[in-house]
Amino acid sequence: MVSKKIAVLPGDGIGPEVCRQAVKVLEAVADRFDHHFDLSSHLMGACAIDATGNPLPDETLEACRAADAVLLGAIGDPKYDHDPSARVRPEQGLLRLRQELGLFANIRPVRAYDVLLAHSPLKKERIQGTDMVIFRELTGGIYFGEKGRTADGEGAYDHCTYSRPEIERIAHLAFRAAAGRRRKLTLVDKANVLETSRLWREVVREMAAQYPEITVDYLFVDNAAMQVILSPTQFDVILTENMFGDIISDEASVIAGSLGLLPSASVGEAVALFEPIHGSYPQAKGKGIANPVAAILSVALLLEHLELDAEAALVREAVDEALNNGILTPELSPTAPYTTEEVGNYIAFWI
Amino acid sequence: MVSKKIAVLPGDGIGPEVCRQAVKVLEAVADRFDHHFDLSSHLMGACAIDATGNPLPDETLEACRAADAVLLGAIGDPKYDHDPSARVRPEQGLLRLRQELGLFANIRPVRAYDVLLAHSPLKKERIQGTDMVIFRELTGGIYFGEKGRTADGEGAYDHCTYSRPEIERIAHLAFRAAAGRRRKLTLVDKANVLETSRLWREVVREMAAQYPEITVDYLFVDNAAMQVILSPTQFDVILTENMFGDIISDEASVIAGSLGLLPSASVGEAVALFEPIHGSYPQAKGKGIANPVAAILSVALLLEHLELDAEAALVREAVDEALNNGILTPELSPTAPYTTEEVGNYIAFWI
Ligand SMILES: CC(C)[C@H](C(=O)O)[C@@H](O)C(=O)O
Ligand SMILES: CC(C)[C@H](C(=O)O)[C@@H](O)C(=O)O
Repeated sequence: MVSKKIAVLPGDGIGPEVCRQAVKVLEAVADRFDHHFDLSSHLMGACAIDATGNPLPDETLEACRAADAVLLGAIGDPKYDHDPSARVRPEQGLLRLRQELGLFANIRPVRAYDVLLAHSPLKKERIQGTDMVIFRELTGGIYFGEKGRTADGEGAYDHCTYSRPEIERIAHLAFRAAAGRRRKLTLVDKANVLETSRLWREVVREMAAQYPEITVDYLFVDNAAMQVILSPTQFDVILTENMFGDIISDEASVIAGSLGLLPSASVGEAVALFEPIHGSYPQAKGKGIANPVAAILSVALLLEHLELDAEAALVREAVDEALNNGILTPELSPTAPYTTEEVGNYIAFWI
Repeated sequence: MVSKKIAVLPGDGIGPEVCRQAVKVLEAVADRFDHHFDLSSHLMGACAIDATGNPLPDETLEACRAADAVLLGAIGDPKYDHDPSARVRPEQGLLRLRQELGLFANIRPVRAYDVLLAHSPLKKERIQGTDMVIFRELTGGIYFGEKGRTADGEGAYDHCTYSRPEIERIAHLAFRAAAGRRRKLTLVDKANVLETSRLWREVVREMAAQYPEITVDYLFVDNAAMQVILSPTQFDVILTENMFGDIISDEASVIAGSLGLLPSASVGEAVALFEPIHGSYPQAKGKGIANPVAAILSVALLLEHLELDAEAALVREAVDEALNNGILTPELSPTAPYTTEEVGNYIAFWI
């Protein structure tokens, strides 16, 4: 029996409803294994702005720091997207949380589920067997560089910067992950144009000497954007900087057939954070159509991170069971759909 | 009868061989319509570095300035990609040429050819009817901002900047193109994170008022990377900044089934440049397997730009004829392939 503190940040849009199912699964695991998960819920994102004016209230940040792991739903609200002058935005909460917690690596596994191949926009023969994991740098680059307007307001700038240690720490994680997988690492960059990319390539080439068993490949991001669709099975571990990782990992998510299936882990200096890769999808809010599987698989990653491997394996089995038996939300089963809650109940019940 | 000066930059890798077929087609057009095309060939890229030490020799730049249009093959050589310390790179030639000629808009049409649907990695029902054109800003953003290393060499930076006039001039082109098409414009940005993206969104929203007949959509680039694969038919005109355009347009190219089919036009302040979107593909050099269609369709765009519409239409017809009759290079017809030259001959003969 273990006892762990888990901070839950349901967030906006469909965040709360998928989190509810993920929590249900956590509770089923606790019951089954006689663990104690001390779960507390906190505000972040648009809901936090509405309630407190701050997308990441101090109370939330403190709760995350004090936790053994953080589970996040999704954040974002379109009412902030079209107002370029808005001073406060939901995304600032997430970006600041990543930075404050030192979550420098976002890890996104992408698999093609055999039973769902028919749902992919890609042809089956192209994607069958896809099993890659993307390591996206999460606290550097153009996301966190200086940004602003020129004095006359007619110009804007965003600075992208990277330092050698920032690259090394995530590259070590990616090399080690590759060592435990198919021993291939692909660095995605734009070294033919960007100086930061040349630094990435330089550092990774040097580090490759320490990992002689790993085959290292280098792809320009424009080429990578094609290869991910043309032959996704060629990839094992992809390593890339923040902005490219944002784009390439969302792109790769189409392989699985639904964004609603893909979890992610953000790890770093201390506590780690787990979240579905989908957004807050406000149009679906409250309709019971959101797929809770990505949030539930984020729970599996969370359990693994806490070294509860048997528990994580059981959650995955339960998810496979749901997928194999057609217990699917409408985007995967338009004719015989189950609700968010029904899918969550099925998976929790199976545990 | 018209008389036009055309500067040809064959470049590196497969560039010269596809250019040869494109020139053959231009000459066939000249014969058929009794035009005079004054064609001259110039060095740019790795071949120019090898011959002169400069990726864009003055002679080449002057020839381009003096021409009515520029036709480019492809540039780039892997021997420069892995040497982050290389001071001179083939890409610098292309980037400088874009800047010197003021080629601020790169225009990339993407179509799904019915006869080639089977070759696409995407399912037919997703892509049938795809017909979009991407307007990529080409002389600003992170490509051309200040870049360098920190004093200790342990850090690197790339600055992204945009000004209102830089956005306005390409946005006008994109709005006007949309007006002549299905009247939909999608701005791709990352306005939830980047200040430059917020400026893009601000400017485009203001300009939208001048084009009331155009429906304007805004998509974050990560979402766009999914939508381009999930439902490409939703797009008419896509407008985006330099780096995002590089990634999204290469990604969208997979829809057509081969990169070897897609042409592009780069237009701006004076002379315009036409080139296939594929790269120099050095592995294929000299093997006769490169697809000349993208270069030949670039000739069609060039003719249109010179207001030779009937001539352009005939080139397109000839290409359709080749595609419909299975006169295809190996990537599209592995079992009964034609060579680069055979495809070029067929198309030129048909004209
Ligand atoms: C919400 C947004 C700031 C965020 C990002 O771009 O990092 C999201 O797209 C993600 O990928 O987690
Ligand atoms: C060769 C390279 C500098 C270039 C770019 O990134 O602009 C190419 O990828 C392109 O898209 O034309």
